[in-house]
Amino acid sequence: MSAPIVRRHDGAFHWEGVDVLQYKQAGTAPFKDVTRQVLFDGTGIPGQLRYFEVAPGGYTTLERHEHVHAVMVIRGRGRCLVGADAYDLETQDLVTVPPMTWHQFLAAADEPLGFICLVPSERDRPQLPDDVATAAEIRRPLGD
Amino acid sequence: MSAPIVRRHDGAFHWEGVDVLQYKQAGTAPFKDVTRQVLFDGTGIPGQLRYFEVAPGGYTTLERHEHVHAVMVIRGRGRCLVGADAYDLETQDLVTVPPMTWHQFLAAADEPLGFICLVPSERDRPQLPDDVATAAEIRRPLGD
Repeated sequence: MSAPIVRRHDGAFHWEGVDVLQYKQAGTAPFKDVTRQVLFDGTGIPGQLRYFEVAPGGYTTLERHEHVHAVMVIRGRGRCLVGADAYDLETQDLVTVPPMTWHQFLAAADEPLGFICLVPSERDRPQLPDDVATAAEIRRPLGD
Repeated sequence: MSAPIVRRHDGAFHWEGVDVLQYKQAGTAPFKDVTRQVLFDGTGIPGQLRYFEVAPGGYTTLERHEHVHAVMVIRGRGRCLVGADAYDLETQDLVTVPPMTWHQFLAAADEPLGFICLVPSERDRPQLPDDVATAAEIRRPLGD
């Protein structure tokens, strides 16, 4: 079934007819307090546009892959790790995650971080750090 | 040159390193008070993601084309015509414009309407109504 023409926002970053999904299966890789909503996908849409929301103090999986992420923050604030640097993020900031670049999104302690993320429909699976020590080294720019 | 990893929002819907462009060449078709900014385009990005801002009382061109639009309002409010219906729009509402469907976006009289719009990188050129009478008939659901 094709999407309705207009899907209204309910004032709290949920949309009519859009399911709030698990971010990933539990047990696959570390993450904390993240939900996923698919906003646009399929017929005629180039790629898939998703909304991720990281609860205060939460974070996405540390990962890398060949496909690129195009991101706009639309709620709250936080930080991201992309490659060798960490960046503060405020609402409406743009982030480009290049191919095979380690990345992670983290919400502030007292605010969620909500962002839309555009990806190709056909994309490779994320790679994870080999072990905890490698992950800690990759995450060093975050300083936490 | 590839995009910087983070491009910050300046608090007024402009972004670091993103040019504010003409919406269309003057004289091609009726529109009023619209700007365009290309947020993501090129290497690895599926499609092009643009930000359009329609000033209070302004409107985009009435047009249709084979390619689909995936839209999220991120500033202000207004209305849109999509096919045979007009819809009120608030911040964060989602709009899908199906193939070959007449559409137009209009800002409220007292507020801008800013929205991101995802399109395929390769896309057909917009078609315009044949004449003023046809345009008026297409726009009838707007009731203005």
